[in-house]
Amino acid sequence: MTRQDTVAFDAQDPLAPLRDQFTLPDGVNYLDGNSLGVLPAAAAARVAQAVSAEWGDGLIRSWNSADWVNLPQRVGDKIGRLIGARSGETLAGESTSVNLYKVLAAALLLVQASGDDARRVIVSERSNFPTDLYIAEGLARRHGCELKLVEPDEIAAQFDPSLAVLMLTHVNYRTGRMHNMAALTRSAHACGALVVWDLAHSAGAVPVDLNAANADFAVGCGYKYLNGGPGAPAFLWVHPSHLDRMEREDLWQPLSGWFGHAAPFEFSPQYRPARGIARFACGTPPVLGLTALETGVDTVLAAEAFGGMAALRRKSLALTDLFIALVEERCAGHGLALVTPREHALRGSQVNLARSEGGYAIVQALIARGVIGDFRAPDILRFGFTPLYTRHVDVWDAVEHLRQVLESGAWREARFNQIAAVT
Amino acid sequence: MTRQDTVAFDAQDPLAPLRDQFTLPDGVNYLDGNSLGVLPAAAAARVAQAVSAEWGDGLIRSWNSADWVNLPQRVGDKIGRLIGARSGETLAGESTSVNLYKVLAAALLLVQASGDDARRVIVSERSNFPTDLYIAEGLARRHGCELKLVEPDEIAAQFDPSLAVLMLTHVNYRTGRMHNMAALTRSAHACGALVVWDLAHSAGAVPVDLNAANADFAVGCGYKYLNGGPGAPAFLWVHPSHLDRMEREDLWQPLSGWFGHAAPFEFSPQYRPARGIARFACGTPPVLGLTALETGVDTVLAAEAFGGMAALRRKSLALTDLFIALVEERCAGHGLALVTPREHALRGSQVNLARSEGGYAIVQALIARGVIGDFRAPDILRFGFTPLYTRHVDVWDAVEHLRQVLESGAWREARFNQIAAVT
Repeated sequence: MTRQDTVAFDAQDPLAPLRDQFTLPDGVNYLDGNSLGVLPAAAAARVAQAVSAEWGDGLIRSWNSADWVNLPQRVGDKIGRLIGARSGETLAGESTSVNLYKVLAAALLLVQASGDDARRVIVSERSNFPTDLYIAEGLARRHGCELKLVEPDEIAAQFDPSLAVLMLTHVNYRTGRMHNMAALTRSAHACGALVVWDLAHSAGAVPVDLNAANADFAVGCGYKYLNGGPGAPAFLWVHPSHLDRMEREDLWQPLSGWFGHAAPFEFSPQYRPARGIARFACGTPPVLGLTALETGVDTVLAAEAFGGMAALRRKSLALTDLFIALVEERCAGHGLALVTPREHALRGSQVNLARSEGGYAIVQALIARGVIGDFRAPDILRFGFTPLYTRHVDVWDAVEHLRQVLESGAWREARFNQIAAVT
Repeated sequence: MTRQDTVAFDAQDPLAPLRDQFTLPDGVNYLDGNSLGVLPAAAAARVAQAVSAEWGDGLIRSWNSADWVNLPQRVGDKIGRLIGARSGETLAGESTSVNLYKVLAAALLLVQASGDDARRVIVSERSNFPTDLYIAEGLARRHGCELKLVEPDEIAAQFDPSLAVLMLTHVNYRTGRMHNMAALTRSAHACGALVVWDLAHSAGAVPVDLNAANADFAVGCGYKYLNGGPGAPAFLWVHPSHLDRMEREDLWQPLSGWFGHAAPFEFSPQYRPARGIARFACGTPPVLGLTALETGVDTVLAAEAFGGMAALRRKSLALTDLFIALVEERCAGHGLALVTPREHALRGSQVNLARSEGGYAIVQALIARGVIGDFRAPDILRFGFTPLYTRHVDVWDAVEHLRQVLESGAWREARFNQIAAVT
């Protein structure tokens, strides 16, 4: 395998034209789309239009004339096409944390309404993304539940009558390991529990079919593989059968804001939730953020003309296979351990490496060379591969830089060891 | 009083230069800044920079290099200067509804931690903005409390041992009536209750001094008088003494997301709230929304060179006095009733008129003439006066259009009666 081989792969890549949808800075080899997706070329003009024409000229009229009022549903439906949701099942807006609070609270209310008082355990992974655990910790305290954190290989032993909700991130942020959504959902349902899936590292990255898996609740992130921009609005999805059950007042989701009201512009003093997924809306939608997010989601939907998520998945696996092979071949003996599973069915669209020391500094040294991955404390070097814009040659070049950094020991320099606030 | 008189007022207005900070569309007389503030001229370039340079070129590095990570505190501190907050007491982000959920839940937890089980009533105004009532309704149910809705003149009778939290919007959205924050806070404290203030129609509109009033909690809106753009992030404020008491685990605010963690980038599985106001943060901050909001807040801070909120208040009262006088003089006999108090101390920066029929159509007919106010069901015609950009002559022209619409009966035309989703 040579660099030229990877250039040849790119020349034959049927998805190569999708890269033209993005504005990638010169001199950057970006392997951090799992943290913040790159800027869609359409975003600057679209956001400028929203600012100058819709806000500036249209002013308050744009709630109707620019259809701001339907942005959460419209963008939600577009995201829904990537995760196996039907129209009207997905809502964009607010943060992943806030959306998780809504759906996990709803799941706990549904379970507790069954009258089975023994069902009081929320199970999650110890290495789930912390904000999910923090939200669950708070809700567990309020609902008199226990939050039980386990390792992935311990999940199978949790399906017992005490299980209320299994809450997992489909692709783990620090291992890159992907769960079997359909099988775990089936096991949870068989024991009478509900499942909440966080699709932060899945939506736009791997094929997801929430309805086929008969999932209960899902949330996900707008700023990673959906390319929605920094701090972009997140999304949530709820199985329609649960929405129907939530008509009872004691089962309303807790963040009962006016955009989730059946008739927000009647200005009634009593809350009466909207039908369908709209009842999970809360505050006034963040128009600028949703506008940018829509351009990002459109870049993923553009892949539908090229085979859609299945084609993106094939390329993603080719990229991560290549990265793993090159690291093992060219960076051997430098103390890197593969954290992400080799088995395709267990792998998301990232590859994580562990190193007992220097991980942070090595990532900094790579960033100084224009190879942008990230570090996740205490010991994870994380590389994300977004098949929309990452090329095979980018993988080659990244590994070559990694090899040079490791062999030169340059990462030991003090400047690479200065901890920044966020990496 | 003639139109020429109002032109002369504008010529002598020391705040007139502040209008140059805004991009106002031609042919629009905008009296709806209490619903959506106009576009600051600086916003388009600043947002474009955030999109193209910070997101596009800086990518993930901009969390540090563009200081995205501190946006909630930085913008919060700027807002704090307008509401009598000290540095480090105010946080920008998320929606008013979500922020209200956090602070009202915190207030209820603090009250209930006192062990006084009789204190179970949340009092608010029946005509408070509905999302506040909806959020309170949900929290009341979860906390075993009663939400009691009263008329403004009944508030004084609510200060008894059952009162847990008094939750009011400082300036009422449908009456334009302003409460005496210091006096009501004092009465609530005297009876052992806490107070939550919604500053949606106050921040940037009227002088507010939360610390002087010894207030407990406050939230407010970014897209009205702060000119932050459609669906802009909101803000919250908490009295430092309450923050100190919230160290106890059972008093943590419920939306315990990772940005409120003491060390979010340690990725610890256990939640440990940050010290100070940061513990009220939840999800990843909405960078584009906060960037636009900052340009909006800057337009209000620019008034500091012209006398600040006191000077804005003087002009605001001159504008609303003028509007009331002209409506009563020139639109007499057309069934309009003044809803907003005449007394300055009881008036915000809007004037609301009630009409038993046709209110919606009259507002639509005005909008068709370029005079943009809004209608609040069932019978309120609402006109907001933002002293940063509203001129005395705008007031004259608006009343003249209102007079013509009423006298011609043009509002009875069908096209003005088609209900749009949002007005």
